[in-house]
Amino acid sequence: MLTIGIDTKKKEPIYEQIYKYIRNEIKNGTLTRGTRLPSSRKFAEYLDVSRNTIDLAYSQLLSEGYVESKPKKGYFVADVDEILEISDVLQEEEETAGKKETLPYEFAPSGVDMGHFPYNTWRKLMKNVLMDDNSEIFQKGDSSGDYELREAIRIYLHQSRGVICNSSQIILGSGMEYLLLLLSQILGTDYTVGMENPTYLQAYRVFTQLGYKVLGISMNEMGMRIDELAKSDVQIAYVTPSHQYPTGTVMPINRRSALLKWAAEKEHRFIIEDDYDSEFRYYGKPIPALQGNDKNGKVIYMGTFSKAIAPAIRVGYMVLPKQLLAIYQEKLSFYSCTVSRIDQAILSEFIREGHFERHLNRMRTLYKGKNQYLMQQLKIFGEDIIVKGSSAGLHVLVEFKGLEDHDRFEKSLYEKGVKIQRISHYYITGKPEKECYILGFARLGETQIREGILIIKDLYDKFRIRKEE
Amino acid sequence: MLTIGIDTKKKEPIYEQIYKYIRNEIKNGTLTRGTRLPSSRKFAEYLDVSRNTIDLAYSQLLSEGYVESKPKKGYFVADVDEILEISDVLQEEEETAGKKETLPYEFAPSGVDMGHFPYNTWRKLMKNVLMDDNSEIFQKGDSSGDYELREAIRIYLHQSRGVICNSSQIILGSGMEYLLLLLSQILGTDYTVGMENPTYLQAYRVFTQLGYKVLGISMNEMGMRIDELAKSDVQIAYVTPSHQYPTGTVMPINRRSALLKWAAEKEHRFIIEDDYDSEFRYYGKPIPALQGNDKNGKVIYMGTFSKAIAPAIRVGYMVLPKQLLAIYQEKLSFYSCTVSRIDQAILSEFIREGHFERHLNRMRTLYKGKNQYLMQQLKIFGEDIIVKGSSAGLHVLVEFKGLEDHDRFEKSLYEKGVKIQRISHYYITGKPEKECYILGFARLGETQIREGILIIKDLYDKFRIRKEE
Repeated sequence: MLTIGIDTKKKEPIYEQIYKYIRNEIKNGTLTRGTRLPSSRKFAEYLDVSRNTIDLAYSQLLSEGYVESKPKKGYFVADVDEILEISDVLQEEEETAGKKETLPYEFAPSGVDMGHFPYNTWRKLMKNVLMDDNSEIFQKGDSSGDYELREAIRIYLHQSRGVICNSSQIILGSGMEYLLLLLSQILGTDYTVGMENPTYLQAYRVFTQLGYKVLGISMNEMGMRIDELAKSDVQIAYVTPSHQYPTGTVMPINRRSALLKWAAEKEHRFIIEDDYDSEFRYYGKPIPALQGNDKNGKVIYMGTFSKAIAPAIRVGYMVLPKQLLAIYQEKLSFYSCTVSRIDQAILSEFIREGHFERHLNRMRTLYKGKNQYLMQQLKIFGEDIIVKGSSAGLHVLVEFKGLEDHDRFEKSLYEKGVKIQRISHYYITGKPEKECYILGFARLGETQIREGILIIKDLYDKFRIRKEE
Repeated sequence: MLTIGIDTKKKEPIYEQIYKYIRNEIKNGTLTRGTRLPSSRKFAEYLDVSRNTIDLAYSQLLSEGYVESKPKKGYFVADVDEILEISDVLQEEEETAGKKETLPYEFAPSGVDMGHFPYNTWRKLMKNVLMDDNSEIFQKGDSSGDYELREAIRIYLHQSRGVICNSSQIILGSGMEYLLLLLSQILGTDYTVGMENPTYLQAYRVFTQLGYKVLGISMNEMGMRIDELAKSDVQIAYVTPSHQYPTGTVMPINRRSALLKWAAEKEHRFIIEDDYDSEFRYYGKPIPALQGNDKNGKVIYMGTFSKAIAPAIRVGYMVLPKQLLAIYQEKLSFYSCTVSRIDQAILSEFIREGHFERHLNRMRTLYKGKNQYLMQQLKIFGEDIIVKGSSAGLHVLVEFKGLEDHDRFEKSLYEKGVKIQRISHYYITGKPEKECYILGFARLGETQIREGILIIKDLYDKFRIRKEE
């Protein structure tokens, strides 16, 4: 009989305490292979717990492979080698849960600065939404999203991005990837998708996974090359014109017209405009979205609140041209909207009451400050670097002159606690003429930026010097 | 020049006030076809607003088809007939937004009673989650959902449904439909799906839309007929064993074993177990999920919090057998989780702190009370009805003897404010031997139930009498 100290005051259920105790005894070798566990009836009596509790603990051990069941004989400890393999995986997940490894200097292009999020406002709106008289929103809502939020987004997109649509053209969904899934069901997958090369790989993975043929189309300093696009058999062009990901190129007006013209030439051509971080533009006139200039119903406009609010809130929107909207309404409007209606209501008030605009203004100032601080720190490199794409967005691109062994440079940086991504990893096909590094700054403070850049400079000098020797 | 009373104190943007004014003038015929609108420069001066404001208003009118643009000449009012068609649709949406038509006596099988939801607890948990030191959860999380919530769900499913898995087998997603989309990418669509006939049509629509071949398999009083299933070329059986939707049949243990045996016979056979309202069982012993008896990795277990908490929260889970989990991890783990991390954190605390269990117990008692009350009211029909499926769930099935013209009966009920659905509408193929009516009671109070049943009785008597005459 196993004597287990059961703590009934613990939040942890009793069966779990028993399960964990036995699991540990097996793992540390106290209970060896072939040992018979006590019968659940006797064990329950002995521990003064219900038999059901013991059965639960045993079935959990069984399901995880720690014990084996022999009919009419009972439970026996299983082979240890196999067990350790399984338990290691579980153990690992338990231990790493919520503790992702982070380096002190992560210049990641994803993530946002949440230090200035208006938590109090958000909390207040949540509270209002949850008042008892609001229980209607706990029931199922409109398939394309609640009218109030779609209308709030329509006004926002019209005013700040020049998007022209009515609210019924806006479909809400829980993030970009889901909206691409939905779009694939509107269009079918019998299309060739052309993407900027390099590009946003997450979208590339979705297209590929869904069975689309995907081609990388070369970029020049104005964005996707239309001559190459026109020669290919691409029918859907996926572009990020307001701040190309990851190169930071802003597509000028001529290239935009050429792209729209390309799409208008054939019936089954479309443009997906991913306006992923258009909220953050620091210099120069704002350039409206492609969608606003589209007279032929060719542009599918997409965006999310991931950069403007937080990646965690999982609210995205897609503006469909009327032709595709008709297909959506006929074939797909039976799908429930994937965004929680509570979140929809909070967000809609957040926008309508002007908090969103104030938040964006605050964040634009904050990110502009970080952007400028980063640019200033980069001056210690003098003429040794070329910086690109710094007029907008939450990352800049840096080319370090005279570096050759990028793998070793990246590895050495990593060992010193600095993580920066390389543009070559964002290519669908081929490699860049010159390797560039992507320096995201949204989540970093000034001290981190300064210290991080100093480490990069230090290693850069070593790697350059070594080469010159 | 148009004189528009602009109210700068209104929340409504000025451009929108101008846009709406002109739109109304066009719609009521004051501005007729071909009328030239003032130039934006002059109009802006006249109204003392910025030219940009006028441009915004005009471009909105243009996009909605109220005006046409002639190069170098300006904007002209468009053809009225076309306009009305478009504007009617918009108008309608604006007017019906948030005001779905509801009848006084809706015996709908969907929806839940939100009158007893612990709003205060939920609000408190939200507040805690949103404390400033918690900003980590606003960043992107784990692809299959946060570990804490998956673990909380694992324990809940294990204890209350006998589901056996580890937390890495649980994939969270924003609702059943999304999870089916994800599953279709794991399995591919080259399968024939067998569904109970009648069935949950929402799932039927998803399968069909995704390109699956779907067959309806007949039911008897024990659930899906395995002999028919075995003779078909079905590879995936979609079942609702704990409370068949909509018939309310509970699949007994023998039929369950037969179904598991069918799946185990061939490599590419699977069972999707939709455990949609298993939380609410009023009589008899709880029957564990099929998944818990599956020794061969054949059952894909699915559930949501739609019935147990609210349809609005959009959190569902899918438990994958290890073989399919490996495919998910290899091919699909790049997808971001579609559930907001804030919602995940709130829900995980809600379960861990025991609020969920207390809420379920409270709701079970409440729904049992409503179920009993409904059954009592139905006694006025004496021997004229047969009631089925009343031991569990949020609806019962009623067969009215001697009724023939169901269309007219349904229509007459509707005119008196009573909405009840007919089982024949849930059939994939064929028709039921006897038409039955689905009486959902979750959202109704006792008065509504009593009055609703009296109306049904009254009309039933008329329709029966008329037939006997």
